[in-house]
Amino acid sequence: MSETQVQAYGTEAAQAPLNQLTIKRRKNTPHDVEIDILFCGVCHSDLHTARNEWHGTVYPCVPGHEIVGKIISVGDHVSKFKVGDTVGVGCLVDSCQECQYCREGLEQFCEPGATQTYNSPDKHLQTQTYGGYSERIVVDENFVLRIPEKLDPAATAPLLCAGITTYSPLRHWNVGPGKKVGIVGIGGLGHMGIKIAKAMGAHVVAFTTSESKFAEAKRLGADEVVLSKDAGQMAAFQGKLHFILDAVSAQHDINEYLSLLRVDGSLALVGAPEFPLPVAAFSLIGGRKSFAGSMIGGIAETQEMLDFCGEHNIVADIEMIDIQKINEAYERLLKGDVRYRFVIDMKSLKSSQ
Amino acid sequence: MSETQVQAYGTEAAQAPLNQLTIKRRKNTPHDVEIDILFCGVCHSDLHTARNEWHGTVYPCVPGHEIVGKIISVGDHVSKFKVGDTVGVGCLVDSCQECQYCREGLEQFCEPGATQTYNSPDKHLQTQTYGGYSERIVVDENFVLRIPEKLDPAATAPLLCAGITTYSPLRHWNVGPGKKVGIVGIGGLGHMGIKIAKAMGAHVVAFTTSESKFAEAKRLGADEVVLSKDAGQMAAFQGKLHFILDAVSAQHDINEYLSLLRVDGSLALVGAPEFPLPVAAFSLIGGRKSFAGSMIGGIAETQEMLDFCGEHNIVADIEMIDIQKINEAYERLLKGDVRYRFVIDMKSLKSSQ
Repeated sequence: MSETQVQAYGTEAAQAPLNQLTIKRRKNTPHDVEIDILFCGVCHSDLHTARNEWHGTVYPCVPGHEIVGKIISVGDHVSKFKVGDTVGVGCLVDSCQECQYCREGLEQFCEPGATQTYNSPDKHLQTQTYGGYSERIVVDENFVLRIPEKLDPAATAPLLCAGITTYSPLRHWNVGPGKKVGIVGIGGLGHMGIKIAKAMGAHVVAFTTSESKFAEAKRLGADEVVLSKDAGQMAAFQGKLHFILDAVSAQHDINEYLSLLRVDGSLALVGAPEFPLPVAAFSLIGGRKSFAGSMIGGIAETQEMLDFCGEHNIVADIEMIDIQKINEAYERLLKGDVRYRFVIDMKSLKSSQ
Repeated sequence: MSETQVQAYGTEAAQAPLNQLTIKRRKNTPHDVEIDILFCGVCHSDLHTARNEWHGTVYPCVPGHEIVGKIISVGDHVSKFKVGDTVGVGCLVDSCQECQYCREGLEQFCEPGATQTYNSPDKHLQTQTYGGYSERIVVDENFVLRIPEKLDPAATAPLLCAGITTYSPLRHWNVGPGKKVGIVGIGGLGHMGIKIAKAMGAHVVAFTTSESKFAEAKRLGADEVVLSKDAGQMAAFQGKLHFILDAVSAQHDINEYLSLLRVDGSLALVGAPEFPLPVAAFSLIGGRKSFAGSMIGGIAETQEMLDFCGEHNIVADIEMIDIQKINEAYERLLKGDVRYRFVIDMKSLKSSQ
């Protein structure tokens, strides 16, 4: 397989900082497009994987799965895109395309396993896949998304993971007019959840542990804000919510939130707390409630989300950084010190050569 | 309010055995029917309540919510039943009839709280409600069920709780032809779950901790039986089940069973383990799965279940006992020594006077 070399930022070990390194990209096969990366969002998964916190990281590791760029070349049989198109790549770059779930547009649940944008076995090269902290990427056109023209490309990058991670469960659990929806945690995921649920027409109730985020939550679109550590404020919502999107990765008491659901309500986790969450049987039985989980979304649904965001003028709230600041950004991410997503301006990588 | 006295079996304290005692019943109000109780099933909830294991028991306590009997008198405005009808009473004898859930036929989730057949505040007398371990009961016709003629009345009694507790979630989660359904635990609830899921047309996989129940599970209608402590047998069902009905009240690892669900699958608890069950985020997220609960069913759905059982000739497997053996039966229940439901022949109470 014909290869090319590109500059990237990654790490050689769990304890090592990210540094500039050179990686290989394949040259276009017939259905590939080559993308010049303009912006890449910084997701908490990037940090977990770089530091091997979920185990299984193969080094060198180049994170990044919130990619926006421009197509600079296309394979011979590419039909969906052309050179010059502004496009996105999210968490997936390939899947079997044949199993029942791929056929249903649920590539994220591909039975033999989808190819993640980074740290998955690469089907073309004898390496793992490398993500968006790099100059260019080569991706099968079936896993490439169109970016609506009217959206700011930098602020659109986080939609490729944070956007679809929140849009998909809100859609799946039928959030819309007449529904009261709770969004727990106002961070990278939660701030998108508030914007999207509001645009879907729901009555949005944001839950936060910090009074300092009240005004922010309202600005983002929340109709009401609840201080989750105030028992009185929580009690006022007992049995009132149709759906809760729980975007908190820290340990927290799920039973408290389940008690806020109406009969037949569901709470969907999109954060991934490290330790199992204790769930009392009566939290579920006494109202036919569901404690559920959701993981990104399929490719068609990701396009639907981008189009929806285009229509409703929704992008992430971002803080742009140069790639040389990525280690510092990770430290700030750990402290929750970002409103609400870091996005790397990839010019900083290209100008460093 | 005009009252009458009836003989019953109940207990005066958490540590006391059940003994014969006299309780009051109201005389029929315009929409009441008076039922001569023929049979009453023995549910594990009876034991939990008699012994105050769920707290909140008011003494004297007369358990029993799987009641079959004959109507012996009717109030002036009763329109649904007449003297001589064979009828059933389940877990509920009243509800507000006005809240959103009552209007939807989900009386079990009545917002102000439904009146349970025993140990609920009685709306008519200044006592708690008394259950089916008694000669007669007076119930609002709206909470009385028709018993299909072709079914054996004694073996039908357990349908009023064990039947609806399993039927309702199987129906709610769309169990039917083309669906693979797991039933966990082959006891009072589980044995009904197997029969009903099979009659709904599903492929039924029974899970048990005891190889001695394999032949039994097949006899009850299971297509396959899995020894849940055998990791190899469990592994063969990874990602294969559309729905799991979990009828186990003992502590057990829910994550093991969640891993057997397909994408979008649900596991519904109908047993109520005492301590919270730890659920790993990745057990749910990696397949958009739901961990849910279900509690009995509404009145209309209970009638639907009885009619379904009439059509498919489904009753419980029972062991008939005299009421004087109830304390012994409780001890055997605790050891799981019953296949699969004790039913009290109420003749034994009447002939003891």
